[in-house]
Amino acid sequence: MLAIVIAGHITIACAQDPLPSWNDGAAKSAIVDFVKKTTETGGANFVPPEERIATFDQDGTLWVEHPAYSQLMYCFYRVGALVKAKPELKNVEPFKTVISGDREAIAKLSMGDLEKIAVATLTGMDTEQFQAEAKQWLAEAKDPRWKKPYTELTYLPMQEALKYLRANGYKTYIVTGGGQDFVRVYAEQTYGVPPEQVVGSALASKYGYDKNGKPMLTKEPKLVLNDNDAGKPEGIHLMIGRRPHAAFGNSTGDQQMLEYTKAGDGARLCMLVLHDDATREYAYGPATGLPDTKVGMFTQALYDEAKKDGWTVISMKNDWKQIFAFEK
Amino acid sequence: MLAIVIAGHITIACAQDPLPSWNDGAAKSAIVDFVKKTTETGGANFVPPEERIATFDQDGTLWVEHPAYSQLMYCFYRVGALVKAKPELKNVEPFKTVISGDREAIAKLSMGDLEKIAVATLTGMDTEQFQAEAKQWLAEAKDPRWKKPYTELTYLPMQEALKYLRANGYKTYIVTGGGQDFVRVYAEQTYGVPPEQVVGSALASKYGYDKNGKPMLTKEPKLVLNDNDAGKPEGIHLMIGRRPHAAFGNSTGDQQMLEYTKAGDGARLCMLVLHDDATREYAYGPATGLPDTKVGMFTQALYDEAKKDGWTVISMKNDWKQIFAFEK
Repeated sequence: MLAIVIAGHITIACAQDPLPSWNDGAAKSAIVDFVKKTTETGGANFVPPEERIATFDQDGTLWVEHPAYSQLMYCFYRVGALVKAKPELKNVEPFKTVISGDREAIAKLSMGDLEKIAVATLTGMDTEQFQAEAKQWLAEAKDPRWKKPYTELTYLPMQEALKYLRANGYKTYIVTGGGQDFVRVYAEQTYGVPPEQVVGSALASKYGYDKNGKPMLTKEPKLVLNDNDAGKPEGIHLMIGRRPHAAFGNSTGDQQMLEYTKAGDGARLCMLVLHDDATREYAYGPATGLPDTKVGMFTQALYDEAKKDGWTVISMKNDWKQIFAFEK
Repeated sequence: MLAIVIAGHITIACAQDPLPSWNDGAAKSAIVDFVKKTTETGGANFVPPEERIATFDQDGTLWVEHPAYSQLMYCFYRVGALVKAKPELKNVEPFKTVISGDREAIAKLSMGDLEKIAVATLTGMDTEQFQAEAKQWLAEAKDPRWKKPYTELTYLPMQEALKYLRANGYKTYIVTGGGQDFVRVYAEQTYGVPPEQVVGSALASKYGYDKNGKPMLTKEPKLVLNDNDAGKPEGIHLMIGRRPHAAFGNSTGDQQMLEYTKAGDGARLCMLVLHDDATREYAYGPATGLPDTKVGMFTQALYDEAKKDGWTVISMKNDWKQIFAFEK
């Protein structure tokens, strides 16, 4: 709907497809029906504007998460900068392996190794310094497959869903297992989602003063919120304080967020993106026989719960006409 | 300013005092000058709308905090309900003292006792049950001095400041040492501040399922954020992710929030409410020789920092024409 307001009272509405990158089908209809139902004044499912909250997982839901999370690529990059500043780390694991560039060895790093890398690259600095470093990387780094900045690897159909919901009074939140401070650096420009509407895995910051007595916040190696699984509804309660009316995800890490959303009264929209398009993006499940993965698992159990609980599964292959804005 | 937009382009502005309960003087001017400076397109101090964040402490800044924080009165009230449900607690301290109603003994309860009372009355239940209980108390409880519901003991001049800032594109946040879940119950109705714009001391919640398998969040006795002192800028970074352009407080617990706000570039507004009106409200400092207090201390050191750092001290006695909306 494109609405033009003239003289304050006369509204001319021109019917326009708000979701042009979506093929007609159950997924597109689910979104349009939900928006109509919940915004129709006087309707049984009307949701007051202040309660219109929609939450979106990021990795695998709003942008590409394979072969590795973009933030992990950032951490690996920062190891290089770290070793330049502290050459003695060159021969210390796990930094030595990251520096070697040996993909097979890197893929075998343990969770403990990855934690060490995260602590070394994401903490210890002023929050503003961190923002500047992340911003620079995002401007320069390119995804190896498409040779595009990571922030261009967002899904056009989901960008349309974000805009369509916002145009209908919904506050759109990102609720991500990724680092809250990291995602906030680009979310406003990339998705139109301001920092205060990004809920993510969060490290503590510590208030103090620099050598000139100027207040500063230092990023600490202390996890305040692990925004995955049960941490998603818990993080939503902590940061938003309202139950969403719509929630979008793509993996087992989003299960509890969708359950919590659906358990509210009235019309609720729960959607899961299924990556079933190896040609245009990636194909992984293991639901419906797709290849297994460690990054963004969509299990058969999750698929079954979706069907049972009335969530809509989005097939990238069938429901999306176009995946990226840069495609012709 | 009352602005009427006609035909989209012609704006007729009628001069109206946005702060009628404020006496003319430095405090009122500081607010009006700040708003003009930061919203004037093309001006040196212009702040883009998305960056307009103003934070307000609650207790002693937006509403009365003497003789005791309202939330503490709520906890004491809930001890009664608790003992009804579990009569064996009647003879267990500190519940026994609270039930006795002996004000002198209650005033002597230790921090450890108060923590036990907080854990017993604020945790263990479903978040929705907690909201319903707090809502009921707020509807029924009355402050002993004015015999009014606590939510009517808000300061009219601060309500005007909240509205004036919002009318000029500022997002107004409450950043309180009080319980986030508690304040969120009434903040929207009382201050026009939605739950997602309330940052407070926060307990963890735990995701689970009730006996019918319905998702629920249970309030846990685990502190996620102590939103006092350094915890205020840390909480602002965690929950908002932007440095405020304006911050309002009244005690040493707000010092770091105001320092952090003032340390940003461009025009910043930092204000402290000084309770120097024993007749119309309360008088306590101990700054400028006012009586000492344990609730909402405004020390001489804080007063000196305010003067040195360019914060504005609001004298309730001299700067506020009217304190409560219910006054004639």
